[in-house]
Amino acid sequence: MRVSQLFLPTLREMPAEAEVVSHQLLLRAGFIRKAAAGVYTFLPLAWRVIKKIEQIIREEMDRQGGQEIMMPIIQPAELWQESGRWDVYGPELFRLKDRHGRDFCLGPTHEEIVTALVRQEVNSYRQLPQLLYQIQNKYRDERRPRFGLLRGREFIMKDLYSFDRDEAGLEISYQKMYEAYTRVFTRCGLKFRPVEADSGAIGGNDTHEFMVLADSGEALVVFCPDESCGYAANVERATSPVRQHGVTREEMPRPLETVDTPGMHTVEQVTGYLGVDARRLIKTLLYQTEKGIVAALVRGDREVNEVKLQKVLDVLRLELADAATVERITGAAVGYAGPVGLQGVPMVADEEVMLLVNAVAGANRDDAHLVNVNPGRDFAPQVVADIREVRAGDPCPKCGALLKETRGIEVGQIFKLGDKYSRVLGATYLDEHGQSRPIIMGCYGIGVTRTMAAAVEQNHDENGIIWPVSIAPFLVVVVPVNHRDEQQMGLAEEVYRELQANGIEVVLDDRPERAGVKFKDADLVGYPLRITVGNQAVQTRELEVRYRASGETRLVPRERITDHVREFIALA
Amino acid sequence: MRVSQLFLPTLREMPAEAEVVSHQLLLRAGFIRKAAAGVYTFLPLAWRVIKKIEQIIREEMDRQGGQEIMMPIIQPAELWQESGRWDVYGPELFRLKDRHGRDFCLGPTHEEIVTALVRQEVNSYRQLPQLLYQIQNKYRDERRPRFGLLRGREFIMKDLYSFDRDEAGLEISYQKMYEAYTRVFTRCGLKFRPVEADSGAIGGNDTHEFMVLADSGEALVVFCPDESCGYAANVERATSPVRQHGVTREEMPRPLETVDTPGMHTVEQVTGYLGVDARRLIKTLLYQTEKGIVAALVRGDREVNEVKLQKVLDVLRLELADAATVERITGAAVGYAGPVGLQGVPMVADEEVMLLVNAVAGANRDDAHLVNVNPGRDFAPQVVADIREVRAGDPCPKCGALLKETRGIEVGQIFKLGDKYSRVLGATYLDEHGQSRPIIMGCYGIGVTRTMAAAVEQNHDENGIIWPVSIAPFLVVVVPVNHRDEQQMGLAEEVYRELQANGIEVVLDDRPERAGVKFKDADLVGYPLRITVGNQAVQTRELEVRYRASGETRLVPRERITDHVREFIALA
Repeated sequence: MRVSQLFLPTLREMPAEAEVVSHQLLLRAGFIRKAAAGVYTFLPLAWRVIKKIEQIIREEMDRQGGQEIMMPIIQPAELWQESGRWDVYGPELFRLKDRHGRDFCLGPTHEEIVTALVRQEVNSYRQLPQLLYQIQNKYRDERRPRFGLLRGREFIMKDLYSFDRDEAGLEISYQKMYEAYTRVFTRCGLKFRPVEADSGAIGGNDTHEFMVLADSGEALVVFCPDESCGYAANVERATSPVRQHGVTREEMPRPLETVDTPGMHTVEQVTGYLGVDARRLIKTLLYQTEKGIVAALVRGDREVNEVKLQKVLDVLRLELADAATVERITGAAVGYAGPVGLQGVPMVADEEVMLLVNAVAGANRDDAHLVNVNPGRDFAPQVVADIREVRAGDPCPKCGALLKETRGIEVGQIFKLGDKYSRVLGATYLDEHGQSRPIIMGCYGIGVTRTMAAAVEQNHDENGIIWPVSIAPFLVVVVPVNHRDEQQMGLAEEVYRELQANGIEVVLDDRPERAGVKFKDADLVGYPLRITVGNQAVQTRELEVRYRASGETRLVPRERITDHVREFIALA
Repeated sequence: MRVSQLFLPTLREMPAEAEVVSHQLLLRAGFIRKAAAGVYTFLPLAWRVIKKIEQIIREEMDRQGGQEIMMPIIQPAELWQESGRWDVYGPELFRLKDRHGRDFCLGPTHEEIVTALVRQEVNSYRQLPQLLYQIQNKYRDERRPRFGLLRGREFIMKDLYSFDRDEAGLEISYQKMYEAYTRVFTRCGLKFRPVEADSGAIGGNDTHEFMVLADSGEALVVFCPDESCGYAANVERATSPVRQHGVTREEMPRPLETVDTPGMHTVEQVTGYLGVDARRLIKTLLYQTEKGIVAALVRGDREVNEVKLQKVLDVLRLELADAATVERITGAAVGYAGPVGLQGVPMVADEEVMLLVNAVAGANRDDAHLVNVNPGRDFAPQVVADIREVRAGDPCPKCGALLKETRGIEVGQIFKLGDKYSRVLGATYLDEHGQSRPIIMGCYGIGVTRTMAAAVEQNHDENGIIWPVSIAPFLVVVVPVNHRDEQQMGLAEEVYRELQANGIEVVLDDRPERAGVKFKDADLVGYPLRITVGNQAVQTRELEVRYRASGETRLVPRERITDHVREFIALA
C-alpha cells in the first residue's frame, strides 16, 4: 500500500479529549475516530491490528476444540426475563423496542442466548463437551465512557462458552482456556499476568483475569515474587494471612479511657497526636447499602476492600454514607466514629481488628477518642471476616513471601459458571444412566479492541506507538528521503515491490512531504521497521534499517534486505 | 473435524416455520437457528460459509483499492437529523435511547457516518479518490420478517462507499465495483446477472442490481436474449418501446357510446362480454398518495409499474385506494372507473394508452362501460409517461429483440449517489484551483448472509444443499460404512488425516450411526465430495468418491485420493 492512498489521517496536535496515552496515540496516529461518546470508527490501520488479534484468538480457540459461531447482537427480552437478568442488569443494558413494541437489548454478553441454543440442541452426554465462541461487537451503556477504547460503549469481544457434563469436565475446559489465553497474549507480544479475580455480577466461583501490565492500568495486582509459588491476584480478590503487627496477645488489656482529640479527624492526626502506631487504631466506616447502614472496621493502616465487603454483606449497592448519616448514627462528626457503644447498625470487623489489644477508636463524640479498646470486651461485631485490602509487603497466602504490587489492564477473564444459567434456563442432558442433569458451564472473554489499546499503553514512547511485530498493522515502512529525487524514489519503489512480492506487509511513504514529516509519522504509527532510502543508499546500495522498539539503526546491503526483514520477523 | 464433535444439529423433519427452500435446508442441515423473528444464530458450518464469502468479497474489494474499516453499529441521531433521514426513514429503523436519553439508531446503512468521517479528514483533491468499506451486521425492522435469511432484521452486509472529485471519477469507481461484484459472484460459484435497477429510497441516479438466478427469487428480471446486446433490468425499472398492438392509427374514431356491462368488473369479464381484445381496453386504477388521490391508466393487458408511477408522481407513499374511495370519486363500484368525465383527480396515462383508437373504458357508472373512447378527444390526462410493467415478449429497448423473463434474488446493488449526501452534510474538498466542491459519492452493498441463502436457493435438490466448492463449509466428508468395523474405521481415519495434512477441509463422520443416516446427512449438509469407506475399500484399496452435484460415483485408488481431490478443486 502507498501511504499517499492510505486512509491514515495523522494529527500534529495532541487531541484535547484524550486522557490516556492509548486514546491519544490511536487518535493522533490515525487509527480511530470518535462517532459518539464511547463509540468509535476503526480506520484501516486499526482494523488490520484488530483482524490480527482476532486471528490469533481464533487459532487458539480452535486449537482447544472451540467452534466459532455468530449469535445475534439484538437479543429478545424474554430470555433475559427467564434468566432474571432483565431486571437486575441496570442502566448499562441498552434496551430497545421493535416496531411491534417487543423488548430487546443489545448483548453485553451472551449467556442467555447460548444456553437457550444448547438446551434446544443438546440432550445427551454424548454431545458434551462443547466449546462455542464468537467474536463480535458488545454493548455496555457506561455512565461515563472514557479512556478511548479502554472503556467504550461499543467494543469487540471474543466470548466462548463451555458446556460440560460435570465439574471435572468444567475443570478441563477451564484449563484449556487458561492455556489458550496464555498463548493468545504471548503471541500478541504482550507482557501480561493471569491473576485470581473476583467473579462480580456474572456469578460463578473460580475466575482469573488476564492483565496486560502497564503503569496506567486501572487494576492493582499483588503477586508473589517467588516464581515457583506464582500467586497473583487482583487486589479486589487478594487475601493474605493475618499477622499481628507489633501488638501481641502478651500485652494485658487495660481499662477503657476517653481522651480529648480536638480537631483530629484523620488516622494520621489521631495517631500523631496520641503517639501511637496506625496499626493500633480501629478505623470505623459507615456504608449505605440496599439493606440499610452497616459499619465496617479495619485497622488504621488498612483500607476497606469494598468488593470483599459487598460479598460478605451480600449486597448489590455499597457506598460510603454521607456526613449527615454518620452524624445521625454516631452522634458525632465524621472522624469520631468507633465501635464501642455504636447502636442500631450491624458491624463487620476485619480479622486483624479482632487481634488488637488496647487499641484506639473514635468515641462517637466530637473531639474525643477511646484508648485501651479491647475487641470482645468492649464491643462485639456481628461478623468477623477478611474485608481488608492486601498490599505490597503483606505475606503471600500460599508461601508467605512478601507480596509485590503492579498495575494492569484487564484484557481477558475466565469464569466457572457451574449450573447458574443452565439450572434457571433448564439446559439439561441425560447422563449414561438416563438421568437428567444440568449442563455445567464456563464463560471466557477477551476484549479485542481493549487488547489493542492495552498493547499501546504498554508499548509506546514519547514519539508514538511501538507495535509488537505479530499485531503491527504493517511491518515495514519504506521512506524515500527526497520525493523529488528520481533515483531515491526508484530504489524505494524497487525495495517496496520486492518486500511486497515476498509477502511482507509493507507500505511505501510516497507522499510529497519533507523527510522529517515522514519520519515523525513512521514513529507515531509505530511500524516495527523503517527502511530509509536516501542519497547514501543510492550510492552505496546500503539501506538504513531502523528498529522502532530500540531506536537503533543498521546498514543492510540492498540485496540482503528481504532476508534481513525475514530474520527480524523470525526473531520477534 | 470429527462429526461426533461438530456442533451440527441436523433435523429429520422439515421445520414447519420455513416457507422457502433455503430457510428449510439451512435449518434442517444445522446451519442456522432462529433467536427471534428475523434474527438468527449462525452455527459453525454457516459461519464457515459466511467467512468464505466475506473473504472473497474482501479480496475483490482490496483488489480495486478498497480499504477496510469498521464503523459503529449504533449511530447517533444527530447525523441522521442532519441528513434529513431521521424523519423520512420509517419504522424500519431500529431506534433507541442511551441512559442519558440521547437518540441512536442501529445502522441499516452508513452513508451518514462515513460522509461525516470523510468531511472531517479529507480536504484536498490530493486525498481523493477513496474507497472505504466494511463487512458488518445491519438492521432493518421489517414489518414481516420471513423467508429465513432472505428477509431478516439482522443481517450481514458489505457496504463500500466511494469518494471522488467529480462524475468522471465516480464513473471509474462505479466500473471498478461493477467488475468487483462480477468477480465476487463468479468466485462464489453462482449463476447471476447484473441488471439495471431502480434507485429507490437511497437516491442517486445509475444503479445496478446483481441477481442470483433462482426460480424462487422475489425479483422479476427481463433480459435480451441477444448476448451481444446484453440488456437486462429489474421489471421495476425495465422499459420497452411503445408498440400498437392490433389497433392502428388507420382506424377512424367513432362516436362515443355507453354499453351495459352488468356485473362485469374485471378486464376478462368485460372483454369477453364485449368480444374485444384486452389490448383495446383502458384500465383505470385509483391510488392513494400523500399528495391525494390520482388515477393511473394502462392498457387492459398491462399492469401498472408502481415504482415508475411513484417516481412520475414524486411521492413516498402509493397504494391502491379502497373501495369506498373509488365509489366516492367515480360514483360507481370498483370495476367501472374510466377516464371520461372523471373529475377532481389528476390522471397519469401510460404512453400506450394514448395510441388507442376506439377503446373501451369504465363509464363511472355501475354496470356500464364506454366504447369508442378516444384519448385526446374524450379525455386529456395531466401526465403521459411510461408507467407500465414490461414483460417477456416486449421488445428490447436497446436492440428490439423480444425480451425474456427470469426470476432472481438480489444479492448486491451498486449506486451512483452523486452529491446527495456530501452536499447536505457538507463534505467538500478544495480542487486544484483552491475552489471548494462537493465530494461525489457512490455506495455499493452486498448482502453476505443473503448470498449464502441465495446459493442454497440456486443449488439444491430434494436431498439437500449442493454447495459450490469455493464456499462449501467443508469440501469432503469421509464416511466409514460400519463404525464397528475396525479396519474400515482405521482406513477412514487414515484418509481423513492425510487429506487434513494436505490442507483439504475435511470432516470424518465418526458417529456410531447407520450408514444410511450418515449418507442422508452428507447429502443434506451438501459437502461437494463424499468418500465412502466400506468393505470393498478395505479389500481392494479403492475408495468410492461421490460427487454431490452430479450424484455420480467413481472408484479412486487409495494412494491417488489426495491428488484426486486436488484435481477436483482445480476444476471447480
